[in-house]
Amino acid sequence: MFLRFFNYSISVSAVVLFSSLSYGVPKPTNSEPIQPIRKPKGLNTNKVELGKKLFFEPRLSKSGFISCNSCHNVMLSGTDNMPVSIGHKWQLGPVNSPTVFNSSYNFVQFWNGRAKDLEEQAGGPIEADKEMASSHTAAVAVMNSIPGYISEFRKVYGSKPISIKMIQNAMAEFEKSLVTTGSRFDKWLDGDTKAITQTEYDGYQLFKAKGCTSCHMGAAVGGTMYQKLGLVKEYKYDKKNMGRYEITKKNADKRFFKVPILRNIELTYPYFHDGAVWDLKEAVEIMAEIQLGLKVNPKERDAIVAFLKTLTGEIPKLTLPVLYPSSLSTAKPSTL
Amino acid sequence: MFLRFFNYSISVSAVVLFSSLSYGVPKPTNSEPIQPIRKPKGLNTNKVELGKKLFFEPRLSKSGFISCNSCHNVMLSGTDNMPVSIGHKWQLGPVNSPTVFNSSYNFVQFWNGRAKDLEEQAGGPIEADKEMASSHTAAVAVMNSIPGYISEFRKVYGSKPISIKMIQNAMAEFEKSLVTTGSRFDKWLDGDTKAITQTEYDGYQLFKAKGCTSCHMGAAVGGTMYQKLGLVKEYKYDKKNMGRYEITKKNADKRFFKVPILRNIELTYPYFHDGAVWDLKEAVEIMAEIQLGLKVNPKERDAIVAFLKTLTGEIPKLTLPVLYPSSLSTAKPSTL
Repeated sequence: MFLRFFNYSISVSAVVLFSSLSYGVPKPTNSEPIQPIRKPKGLNTNKVELGKKLFFEPRLSKSGFISCNSCHNVMLSGTDNMPVSIGHKWQLGPVNSPTVFNSSYNFVQFWNGRAKDLEEQAGGPIEADKEMASSHTAAVAVMNSIPGYISEFRKVYGSKPISIKMIQNAMAEFEKSLVTTGSRFDKWLDGDTKAITQTEYDGYQLFKAKGCTSCHMGAAVGGTMYQKLGLVKEYKYDKKNMGRYEITKKNADKRFFKVPILRNIELTYPYFHDGAVWDLKEAVEIMAEIQLGLKVNPKERDAIVAFLKTLTGEIPKLTLPVLYPSSLSTAKPSTL
Repeated sequence: MFLRFFNYSISVSAVVLFSSLSYGVPKPTNSEPIQPIRKPKGLNTNKVELGKKLFFEPRLSKSGFISCNSCHNVMLSGTDNMPVSIGHKWQLGPVNSPTVFNSSYNFVQFWNGRAKDLEEQAGGPIEADKEMASSHTAAVAVMNSIPGYISEFRKVYGSKPISIKMIQNAMAEFEKSLVTTGSRFDKWLDGDTKAITQTEYDGYQLFKAKGCTSCHMGAAVGGTMYQKLGLVKEYKYDKKNMGRYEITKKNADKRFFKVPILRNIELTYPYFHDGAVWDLKEAVEIMAEIQLGLKVNPKERDAIVAFLKTLTGEIPKLTLPVLYPSSLSTAKPSTL
């Protein structure tokens, strides 16, 4: 935020543009606030494969219809691209479903940070009435009624019966594998000065100069802290959700939300915790205004959006899991 | 049915069992009523890939939540394994969703045969109020608002704009690729006399001798004709659905349904057009009783079930498609 009044010079960028025709844009400095995102090392591949099955497993829900992937669709953007998600009995969720891509880079999980990590998070939707509407007891019983899962869990965890802890642990391991590397911005960070255009580079310089990187920083370009939504001026859409306050009941936490990650932001519309905004340009304008007290002009805004689109990485190439058949003792799905 | 009173001889099978310890079961004859199922040849791979995207495309539904795969889950059995499916606004469908696997082997589509082929079928659920609840016009407009689809359809079909005909055609091409080869029964049909056990072989001989192959024949073990449900005795669960009659309004078609295919029947529970029966043993008993007027004893029933389980083929190995992002002109999903 100390950079808020930095005056970005168009004339400098014009010179850079000229030279970039043959040499690309300038190289990154040694102290960029954003770092390349990397595939995690040392994941347990057996857990990842098991976790993938569980991620797509509709029988973890009461209806047998809803899986993690229903709301965190890895064929789209790791989200369902809806303002709020549809859950059991067509109930609508209270907040926008965040993307599962790069979610291991969030310092806490959920918009209000009520889960400390992915493993803890994975247990939430299973028993949320408006989501999968099951219970841990019921979900575990379903898993323990399916011979294929019994065998695979035993292979992976070395013991039986299947526990909710194992289920959450395997899911989290799969989710940790969902990192979108290979973005053009990361190529630039890694030294390829032709990976981004001059406008995109200019947008990034603006993104830093305006102060966006005060919150949106690090490998995931966010997910490292809580911040108040409406730091300078009130957010004009959903005004009811108190964010972190609903967990801590501390006045100082009112309207504080986990800063969302901006990796693949081009794909993860609609925006904000209420999914109220579909246009990334509008989202940038709102952020500048209510978080930084700034008006961005259309040219600046468009340059920032151009930069943000360079954060789109490669969607992980996944093979579809084949889920094990139920047994006659598996509890029947219920639409009620 | 002319074989209904054939007396299956246990003593013959005991002799065969003895010899099979080293030589396997007898070879198939030259006139088996079931043939191996084969992968289709000559599919257009570009259409298959496009059709796969569309099969998983929730934006073809009004809610943006339901895709073909919601009810015909290719990670399970090509079905949702529910008695009837959940659709728009949590409405329940009128009949059990048949498996998409090997569905190109059905001589007509839907339980009542109201679509002549997969291409025609593919248009139905999009505009069915209890399923995807969109319209062809709306679905086509969504597709034509997504630059990635515009480009891929043009590459595949050579013209624009995208039409519902193209959408249905590509979906059908993908579905034609979903054939489950490699079952143990097919290995036996192809000459491997050790691919099935003596009990499974016995079950197959019973399946023929009792008359099951009067209807369940061919490469898909069904799907070649209509037949009356309750030919000899009334079906005891859903009595309301009049099947083919609801299309033709001819009395002779009352209670006639397309004979379902039995490939992967072990996986495609629950059974019958109403999904009323979860246990394959019960399904076999019901069929014997109401279609053939026979009581099968537990040993016969279990042998037939053992045979039916040899019809489980290899679930196609698919990579997950990556769906194109919407544009700002794409119609927003509606949960209403």
